[in-house]
Amino acid sequence: MRKFSIDTNLRVRLFHQPGQLARLAAAIAEQGSLMGEIAIVSIDEHHTVRDVAIETSDDEHTRRVIGAVKALAGIELLAITDRVFERHQGGKIRSGSRVKVEQVVDLRHIYTPGVARVAKAIEREPALAWDLTSLGHSVGIFTNGSRVLGLGNIGPLASLPVMEGKAVLYDRFAGLSATPLLVDTLEAERFVDAVELLSRSFGGIHLEDIRIPECFVIERELIRRLQKPVMHDDQHGTAIVALAAVLNACKLTGVDPSSSRVGQIGLGAAGSAIARLALTLGAREVLVSDVSPQAVAALEAEGARGVDLPTLLQQADIVVATTGKPGLIRPDMVRRGQVIFSLSNPDPEIDPGAAVAAGAAFAGDGRSINNALAFPGLFKGILEARARRFTPEMYTDAARVIASFAQPGEVVPSPFDMRIHDAVREAVLLRARQQDLIGTARL
Amino acid sequence: MRKFSIDTNLRVRLFHQPGQLARLAAAIAEQGSLMGEIAIVSIDEHHTVRDVAIETSDDEHTRRVIGAVKALAGIELLAITDRVFERHQGGKIRSGSRVKVEQVVDLRHIYTPGVARVAKAIEREPALAWDLTSLGHSVGIFTNGSRVLGLGNIGPLASLPVMEGKAVLYDRFAGLSATPLLVDTLEAERFVDAVELLSRSFGGIHLEDIRIPECFVIERELIRRLQKPVMHDDQHGTAIVALAAVLNACKLTGVDPSSSRVGQIGLGAAGSAIARLALTLGAREVLVSDVSPQAVAALEAEGARGVDLPTLLQQADIVVATTGKPGLIRPDMVRRGQVIFSLSNPDPEIDPGAAVAAGAAFAGDGRSINNALAFPGLFKGILEARARRFTPEMYTDAARVIASFAQPGEVVPSPFDMRIHDAVREAVLLRARQQDLIGTARL
Repeated sequence: MRKFSIDTNLRVRLFHQPGQLARLAAAIAEQGSLMGEIAIVSIDEHHTVRDVAIETSDDEHTRRVIGAVKALAGIELLAITDRVFERHQGGKIRSGSRVKVEQVVDLRHIYTPGVARVAKAIEREPALAWDLTSLGHSVGIFTNGSRVLGLGNIGPLASLPVMEGKAVLYDRFAGLSATPLLVDTLEAERFVDAVELLSRSFGGIHLEDIRIPECFVIERELIRRLQKPVMHDDQHGTAIVALAAVLNACKLTGVDPSSSRVGQIGLGAAGSAIARLALTLGAREVLVSDVSPQAVAALEAEGARGVDLPTLLQQADIVVATTGKPGLIRPDMVRRGQVIFSLSNPDPEIDPGAAVAAGAAFAGDGRSINNALAFPGLFKGILEARARRFTPEMYTDAARVIASFAQPGEVVPSPFDMRIHDAVREAVLLRARQQDLIGTARL
Repeated sequence: MRKFSIDTNLRVRLFHQPGQLARLAAAIAEQGSLMGEIAIVSIDEHHTVRDVAIETSDDEHTRRVIGAVKALAGIELLAITDRVFERHQGGKIRSGSRVKVEQVVDLRHIYTPGVARVAKAIEREPALAWDLTSLGHSVGIFTNGSRVLGLGNIGPLASLPVMEGKAVLYDRFAGLSATPLLVDTLEAERFVDAVELLSRSFGGIHLEDIRIPECFVIERELIRRLQKPVMHDDQHGTAIVALAAVLNACKLTGVDPSSSRVGQIGLGAAGSAIARLALTLGAREVLVSDVSPQAVAALEAEGARGVDLPTLLQQADIVVATTGKPGLIRPDMVRRGQVIFSLSNPDPEIDPGAAVAAGAAFAGDGRSINNALAFPGLFKGILEARARRFTPEMYTDAARVIASFAQPGEVVPSPFDMRIHDAVREAVLLRARQQDLIGTARL
């Protein structure tokens, strides 16, 4: 189902006769396409005009369905709209005023001469900027577009719709003001310098879709230099939601994570962060496997044990794979009673059905791992705490909180349950208090 | 009146007796403070609670008024609020979603998997980003806070309320999405590099409150490198509105600008731009005067004639002063029939009343020069044109358009007349078409 990623709207005119819609539906079904929403646009004496949404897997598939619909006698295809492109028209975000400006006195208050006193007050006492500017609710989303979704290095401009999507989710789930910033360089040092020079513009710094190994260097260096919250979402956001899924899968299957060996296959951005979170969580042991000896060595330095793939699958009670290599895990490598998450999209390391058939107690893939569960509440909490950094404990707390909202049968909840984002916010705030980080962020 | 820059709200409880409000008003008047809005908050059997706004010149003045109100028997002062600071609480801007996100299908459209197709489409054909992202309505407001209003180099953080004010005006007057970007360096080269690296994030680049001479270097270099619209508002925005005022003053007094000598005193950001616009407009001659020989030489290279102050005042028919030096122009230097604008705030080079008494045909100061008349429509037009740069002709056209909306007795109109911004937009668009600049902006 996930592979049906194209939503197209067909506007069709049908005769008022029983069976017309059924013919249309049958033609669409015959081409292996799913139907989505169906709405009536207009009705006259002889015809009904309807919008019929179809889901297809690729452009060729869409063309085939359209061809089949066109071939139907008595059914006229009036218009074809790509529903995704339609919703991107004009962009997905905007920024604007929070204050009313209706008359000259309003200008005097929000602009000159009034604003000069506010500027002077902040010059004297910088901490006032938290309350007197937007910094308390602003996040800059910085990317160079070097590793966007599964598309690779498509560059900053082409990544903008993805960044706008993130900004939409920040608004929708946490009421935060997020701004996409496209940094046009692949060099880590230049990227870090640019973000540092611009960093005073935002309360928090969200790093997004930056390839390895630069993403590690960039995040580490910015955390060191800025003394304000910095998070690379492809590492920690993904790891938190993956960990939430693992915790729920363990609960479902009666596996105790703290007495388990966790095996992480693939040490990219997400995989490295998952292994680190498992270490923070206190698993009995964390095994890691990757084609890069440097990546393995980095995790070994933090307490994990590097092993080869067969050993990992043999020894781990919980296995998480983030390699981007479909079919990497053969069914005969699965150990009875294992919990397995093969998270690579769109094609997992092992099909969950095959893993269960081979004896896994639980198997999941990447479809349910939605970062939108984590980053909005994380930044909401860290900004409210005015803490200078995220901590690993905040991340594990967030994973536990997210896990706790899953409905029976789910391993992760829907991000539309707004209580989740608020609970993540509170968890971060609480931990910031415990770790004595309240009010430590630099402005 | 302009010097009454502090608006304070006093919440007072008064007895229900004739003359109580009069006593309060008299006490406020005795301290030389103006009263603004008066509103009833609540009424009970014996008392009325009112909010009374007062305008004062400085904190000491406010304290004196408060002291006088407190001393009034039978009138209780319940609360004191600084109306400007109150309106800055939480900042003046926010950014958020333009699209509805209510269910999972919405996420599929605006985020993954749908967004991947949009990203790929832009990778193949970058020009699609104009329609499929927010670039067509986005402006980055870049500053280093090195010359903010009359406050000087207060640094980037303290300048943020001013930048947010600009962003509010962009939204209010042109529906554009503007984002403040604080660039933490005083070095022109580093500033330019940072803006260049980030420039793909925005459709247009607005430079703000950058000191001389860096502002000239920064603007020139960014225009050269970016091939997208860049404008330093303290130069061109101010110059356009000043020119509009000059044009109207000329009309009022029967002076013909094209056969006049224009004298510009002070070649800072605004002054240099005003002299350049006068050259573009085709004045008979443009005389310039400044303490810096380099600044004078730069304008001489473009066709102006450098002279000393007395010569300028002797020869120019129209005089504009932007020196920041109160009282620089003595009444005995004024020539009969001259049009004089002394624009320095808060204290002009010569008081308009004194200039007229000395024989000037018209004299104005900086109070009416509001940049909000120009920059919103300018960027709206240039983005609609997708033109790669602003031209001097666009600036003079904008000045003429703005001038044309002034009411009888005004030299510039109120920015709340929304027709102005639309007319400026159209003027820019028309000129872009004439100058063959449509669709030339780089993305």
